[in-house]
Amino acid sequence: MSQDALVVAVGPKPDSDFDAAITAGGGVPGPLARATGLVWTDSRSPLPQLPAGVRWVQLPFAGIEGFLSSGALARHPQVVFTSAAGAYSGTVAEQALGLLLAGVRGLWHREGSWEPASAAARTGRLGGSTVAVVGAGGIGRDLIPALRALGVKVVAVNRSGRPVDDAVVVPADRIDEVWPAVDHVVLAAPSTAETRALVNAGVLAQLRPHSWVINVARGSLIDTDALVDALRAGRIGGVGLDVTDPEPLPDGHPLWSIPNAIITPHVANPPQHLRPALLERVEVNVRRVANGMEPLAVIDRDRGY
Amino acid sequence: MSQDALVVAVGPKPDSDFDAAITAGGGVPGPLARATGLVWTDSRSPLPQLPAGVRWVQLPFAGIEGFLSSGALARHPQVVFTSAAGAYSGTVAEQALGLLLAGVRGLWHREGSWEPASAAARTGRLGGSTVAVVGAGGIGRDLIPALRALGVKVVAVNRSGRPVDDAVVVPADRIDEVWPAVDHVVLAAPSTAETRALVNAGVLAQLRPHSWVINVARGSLIDTDALVDALRAGRIGGVGLDVTDPEPLPDGHPLWSIPNAIITPHVANPPQHLRPALLERVEVNVRRVANGMEPLAVIDRDRGY
Repeated sequence: MSQDALVVAVGPKPDSDFDAAITAGGGVPGPLARATGLVWTDSRSPLPQLPAGVRWVQLPFAGIEGFLSSGALARHPQVVFTSAAGAYSGTVAEQALGLLLAGVRGLWHREGSWEPASAAARTGRLGGSTVAVVGAGGIGRDLIPALRALGVKVVAVNRSGRPVDDAVVVPADRIDEVWPAVDHVVLAAPSTAETRALVNAGVLAQLRPHSWVINVARGSLIDTDALVDALRAGRIGGVGLDVTDPEPLPDGHPLWSIPNAIITPHVANPPQHLRPALLERVEVNVRRVANGMEPLAVIDRDRGY
Repeated sequence: MSQDALVVAVGPKPDSDFDAAITAGGGVPGPLARATGLVWTDSRSPLPQLPAGVRWVQLPFAGIEGFLSSGALARHPQVVFTSAAGAYSGTVAEQALGLLLAGVRGLWHREGSWEPASAAARTGRLGGSTVAVVGAGGIGRDLIPALRALGVKVVAVNRSGRPVDDAVVVPADRIDEVWPAVDHVVLAAPSTAETRALVNAGVLAQLRPHSWVINVARGSLIDTDALVDALRAGRIGGVGLDVTDPEPLPDGHPLWSIPNAIITPHVANPPQHLRPALLERVEVNVRRVANGMEPLAVIDRDRGY
């Protein structure tokens, strides 16, 4: 660790909140010409050519497909680029837990008069149940401790089968073993060829009449027609969807009028949460770089994420 | 610890599930005449005169006012009585968290078409906020770890000011300091003279436009008229009530038609959750007694709870 202060610039525009985050992390806000780090706050503005002194750039987005295609990574072989991957997972995990509890506890039904018998029949217990968290990346990491604190057993499904704290791990190629073994399912996996229609008619038939399916990932992970059939037949307890297929969900789509289908229009990570989350990540990463540690979410030049 | 097996009877009726819980706890189900312990499973049946061999009785209820007035405690001075206090707090804590998340994340509003801008404006963030948990008994103990796992700062209010894990504790006589310092409030305190109308117009005026107030304790803790005024004026974010004053909340009461008032009709601990929770408590307490430990929730003959 150098005794020299870490000078970090903010662009494309000056921003006193980011200056404050840099200061809180132990850095010194300063002009790009003499900066070692750059915090880029606008996902729509292309990155300029960087002075030779810049060694680290913090990008504002988690998904970097567009950035990779811009060529900026190749133009700056000496620079460590960090994305905001993981910075926004807390709010998505919260949405997933909110949807799951709203489902299991019967809050999807708006009470209009005091009828405890019917309300009690809708009030399930999440504690003691088993929840599959499919895709154990950042969202899973933020969700699993809260589920565990509520007394939930967690089965985490990931590609590699690598261990996940406080969860039984099943590798994705054995996911068929998971469906009959769990009470509820939370989908938090990326949209890929393998995850397309992951939850289909056959899977829905293996879940239980009290099972809730929560999707905060991508709409394509669920076969929507099969889902509507399962809900209409009462084969599952309900569904909480922050993402849909098709998306946007058109007016008049059957899902809008199924009572135990809770729909939120892709707002698990709403715009007003982006900035505080990025400010927090900037503070953490400035502190890490200033102390000679690797910053969070370094972009791997070979793997492209 | 004796080498002899702990014989535990079940009454007033035989019940194989409770026999199984006794066995799981390391005891032996047996007839009352040669039992050391008795598990009483029916809150409506009076306790019989107990044989001299009985040293411990597990009662099925948490609130023991009715039991105290029956005189059964006085008739059996040699017996340790345990209530079910705390056994049912997990489901109530879950309801509190569900109501809080449904409020903060905007799930109280049923979406009817895909309108992300308005939905995003309703979607708050619980993580990073500060929540007051008023009454840090069993419900608080079960709720606080889940809040902490979501990145919430917890201010716990209890009578004694005794420490609570993972929370800043404020004693009840300094509760006025709490209201302006927190984002949200969860009420989980008993109904007493001191807690009557604890949340009144003056308190509601100190909360914030985004603050949610959750009540899973007793309706009397909130001044309902003041609450309706605050909701109509938009002075708080909303309210999640499992208990009301008056209770039952009559048809046509203004709270039924305020959109950001989520009402559940006193179902946080619904009948179907009682039995599994009591079975679990019986197993734990049989294990404790069999191993010479004090069982959970021993009734204090002097204090009457």
